[in-house]
Amino acid sequence: MMRQAGRFLPEYRKVRAKTTFLELCRTPELAAEVTVQPIDRLDVDAAILFSDILVVFDAMDVKVDFRPGPVVENPVRTAADVKRLRFGDPGDDVGYVMDAVRACKKALDDRVPLIGFCGAPFTTASYLVEGESSRDFVNIKRLIFSEPALFGRLMEDMSDLLARYLLAQIDAGVDAVQIFDSWAGALSPEDYARHVLPHTQTLVSRVKNAGVPVILFARGNANILGLSAQAGADVLGIDWSIGMSDAIDVVGEETVVQGNLDPMLLLGSPDLLRERALAVVEAGRRAKGHIFNLGHGISKFTDPEMARLLVDTVHGA
Amino acid sequence: MMRQAGRFLPEYRKVRAKTTFLELCRTPELAAEVTVQPIDRLDVDAAILFSDILVVFDAMDVKVDFRPGPVVENPVRTAADVKRLRFGDPGDDVGYVMDAVRACKKALDDRVPLIGFCGAPFTTASYLVEGESSRDFVNIKRLIFSEPALFGRLMEDMSDLLARYLLAQIDAGVDAVQIFDSWAGALSPEDYARHVLPHTQTLVSRVKNAGVPVILFARGNANILGLSAQAGADVLGIDWSIGMSDAIDVVGEETVVQGNLDPMLLLGSPDLLRERALAVVEAGRRAKGHIFNLGHGISKFTDPEMARLLVDTVHGA
Repeated sequence: MMRQAGRFLPEYRKVRAKTTFLELCRTPELAAEVTVQPIDRLDVDAAILFSDILVVFDAMDVKVDFRPGPVVENPVRTAADVKRLRFGDPGDDVGYVMDAVRACKKALDDRVPLIGFCGAPFTTASYLVEGESSRDFVNIKRLIFSEPALFGRLMEDMSDLLARYLLAQIDAGVDAVQIFDSWAGALSPEDYARHVLPHTQTLVSRVKNAGVPVILFARGNANILGLSAQAGADVLGIDWSIGMSDAIDVVGEETVVQGNLDPMLLLGSPDLLRERALAVVEAGRRAKGHIFNLGHGISKFTDPEMARLLVDTVHGA
Repeated sequence: MMRQAGRFLPEYRKVRAKTTFLELCRTPELAAEVTVQPIDRLDVDAAILFSDILVVFDAMDVKVDFRPGPVVENPVRTAADVKRLRFGDPGDDVGYVMDAVRACKKALDDRVPLIGFCGAPFTTASYLVEGESSRDFVNIKRLIFSEPALFGRLMEDMSDLLARYLLAQIDAGVDAVQIFDSWAGALSPEDYARHVLPHTQTLVSRVKNAGVPVILFARGNANILGLSAQAGADVLGIDWSIGMSDAIDVVGEETVVQGNLDPMLLLGSPDLLRERALAVVEAGRRAKGHIFNLGHGISKFTDPEMARLLVDTVHGA
């Protein structure tokens, strides 16, 4: 479940109370501790590394703070800003993530696989340029529409950095990697195809031969689902904005899908949760493979008992 | 152009500097003045009443402030909150909007038609329950998923209030009405069909026989476009998240469409703006009718000259 190691778990809040979000990401023992917590509590079938897509900025000397949403100290706005960027060595500069991976693998002791992740080039670049979560993406779109070549170079460098970041995670022991394109839906299908997809394809192809499955989750506009299916990932994450059956129609039955229950159903009645979860399971049977998941991150308001009920329901289906 | 009477115009900022946003909405002479401003400056083919979808809360004794986003003083969260709501008489309680309509009609002197509007039942109810703009809509979804009958009653009362609000605007003289379902994309297609569409249908059918065209703009998830086409509106607004040609495939060539240029293209190069605007015009020719528009509100960072270039480009196509 997306964000399964998170604020809805009392045991997470207990660890988090002692430190900041960023320090938690940067302290391998603590990151491993919270990564493993949901395995026991929820009986989920995989661990998802506790981290954040923006810690990779430590390999770029870009400072980011969480209040609680991410805020970049000096957002990249001009051509000069872009040219000044450093694209370092994630294996070293974000070495604490690889240490966390090794600590997780030890703590998990092969009970379940471990999933590593990164932000997709567009989503990472969007945070870099917008400086924070955005509604209208005015700065990144201005860059794309006024200086497309400059944006393209930024995306190339970003893709290269992220490929090396994922390869370092795989080297350290993750069993699968997920690429989160959380802001892909900020663009029209035409602009996604022209300015984003080629770079996502590059990233996927660079990590695909490293021996672990690659999951791509392009969120926020199911109209780009068909395009994101062309990125070459082994598994496609589906968000809740489209019915699972319709999503399979779009990406084809030969694709392995992941998703896509609306996480807010965990805040409703147990009967409705069971009914809707089973409907997703049934719809997913038509695909070549289906990894049940939420269609977005779990809410911090979720009762852990409801999350467990969901896992048990899916296991029993 | 959506939000054509707004912050990107210096003459708007001049009026706005003397008052608050809410007072501007509530002062018919000033609202009429800014409504008419873009007609001269941009040569657009219609005036859009300057107002806000949330002023209708004045007919419910619900206090809302703009900082600059809307913040509701006491969001509706419990069953008791819902039952305590008053659904008044918009014709009286929001009478300043009808006065603004009459002032606009006088100032426009039949040069161009005037479009009135309201929020759709779901979007209006979402603000009422969330209390402000939301990313995850946790409160309204909790209400839908845990107390669907209570939510249904709220939507019924809201639809009735909004129907009377639009009818009052039509009585006062608007030549068309637009229903903004800005947050429709917060729901999966299944939940939109079950919990929202029937109420939007009620609202549309109540105003449809009043003699003016009804435009429905359900934004944020083009996967509900096919469903929103069932609401019975005369014109369907299309947001930028789907290609215009694909949108026409979804809603059918017998539908009149409105849209759908990404407004951020106004921040890019003039050549790209022209190219993309003409592509939308061309794609729209296949529909029974096409009202060129942006696919979302114009950005406050837009150079008015670029907005004028867009209008001239479309007029020349």
